[in-house]
Amino acid sequence: MLIHQTVSEFLDTTASSSPAPGGGSVSALAGALGAALTSMVCRLTIGKKKYAAVEADMQASLAQSEALRNQFLSLIDQDTAAFNGVMAAFGLPKETDEQRSARESAIHDATRQATLVPLELMRTLQRALPFTAIVAEKGNKNSASDAGVAALLIGSAARGAALNVYVNLSGLPENAFRRDTEQETRGLEQKIVTESDRIAATVRSSLTGAS
Amino acid sequence: MLIHQTVSEFLDTTASSSPAPGGGSVSALAGALGAALTSMVCRLTIGKKKYAAVEADMQASLAQSEALRNQFLSLIDQDTAAFNGVMAAFGLPKETDEQRSARESAIHDATRQATLVPLELMRTLQRALPFTAIVAEKGNKNSASDAGVAALLIGSAARGAALNVYVNLSGLPENAFRRDTEQETRGLEQKIVTESDRIAATVRSSLTGAS
Repeated sequence: MLIHQTVSEFLDTTASSSPAPGGGSVSALAGALGAALTSMVCRLTIGKKKYAAVEADMQASLAQSEALRNQFLSLIDQDTAAFNGVMAAFGLPKETDEQRSARESAIHDATRQATLVPLELMRTLQRALPFTAIVAEKGNKNSASDAGVAALLIGSAARGAALNVYVNLSGLPENAFRRDTEQETRGLEQKIVTESDRIAATVRSSLTGAS
Repeated sequence: MLIHQTVSEFLDTTASSSPAPGGGSVSALAGALGAALTSMVCRLTIGKKKYAAVEADMQASLAQSEALRNQFLSLIDQDTAAFNGVMAAFGLPKETDEQRSARESAIHDATRQATLVPLELMRTLQRALPFTAIVAEKGNKNSASDAGVAALLIGSAARGAALNVYVNLSGLPENAFRRDTEQETRGLEQKIVTESDRIAATVRSSLTGAS
């Protein structure tokens, strides 16, 4: 599994001439980093007298954020596996009509799967962001910049995941799946980026005293 | 060193109740991931007949991108070390006037160092982004989404690094260092984010056929 590589090795593997892991897995890692920072701010708030009033919020956010972090971790490997599935389908024999038909069908199935992984990443980012908003608003003020970085990473992960949805959709025929997926992706990207930017701007103005 | 932890351990360490590594180190990692994806697109372009005309561009970009990736890796640990330096200064004794004066001076020195690390991160991101622009424009079209994710991560790393500059500057007295650093940070953030968004939008419209 990629997540059992060291950070240094993971970067080497990404930079290598193997196309996977690529932008999809890296976007999932950005989501995991955003969730990890969100959890850190919860933990730096819990148990502090000054923040006793938000203790329950922080405990609930921490539990959710940690569960979502595990989902992001799983999506790192799922994206690479889905990409490898597409490559394997392209490698199928294409000598006879029957083989060509089976190969095309396998390519479509694998490409649909490679679309669904970044779409699931976007849905997971959408579920994670409210907890980042809570820690940015109510968490330990000394960790405000960490909450801001969490929001920024979740925003760029969503934009990166959307690019991965679009590149895979472009390999599929025009059909209801393609239309529905494109529409859901656009909606999710817009909502996540708007909220991520709002959180980052709030943090920024709290640190600089300006908007 | 943090980069010798596994990806999973690094995320656990980030999510823990220890404030470091925090948003500064994670922003440096986002820069390293952007450089790694940029290098990958270079490698997936080099040696391909179809891209023979840009071979020299890709070789030059790869060399730069890999050197910058090493600088980002170093900044991951530098940021955590600088943060720990600030914490150590706050822990100095403050019984006598002499101690209080030495402690305040140590806090200012350490805080200035904790400001310079994310500022150096921003300068490094600024140096890295032109190579991401080159691979997005001239690199293997099959890797366009990877170039887009690289640009997005570099953009959010710059915005995250800026938050870390601001939070540290707020702990320093109003002086020339603070004014100059704030001005440089604002300028770098604006340039990097504008260019990062431009690259991502170009990739997005090449994949969706729309702006």
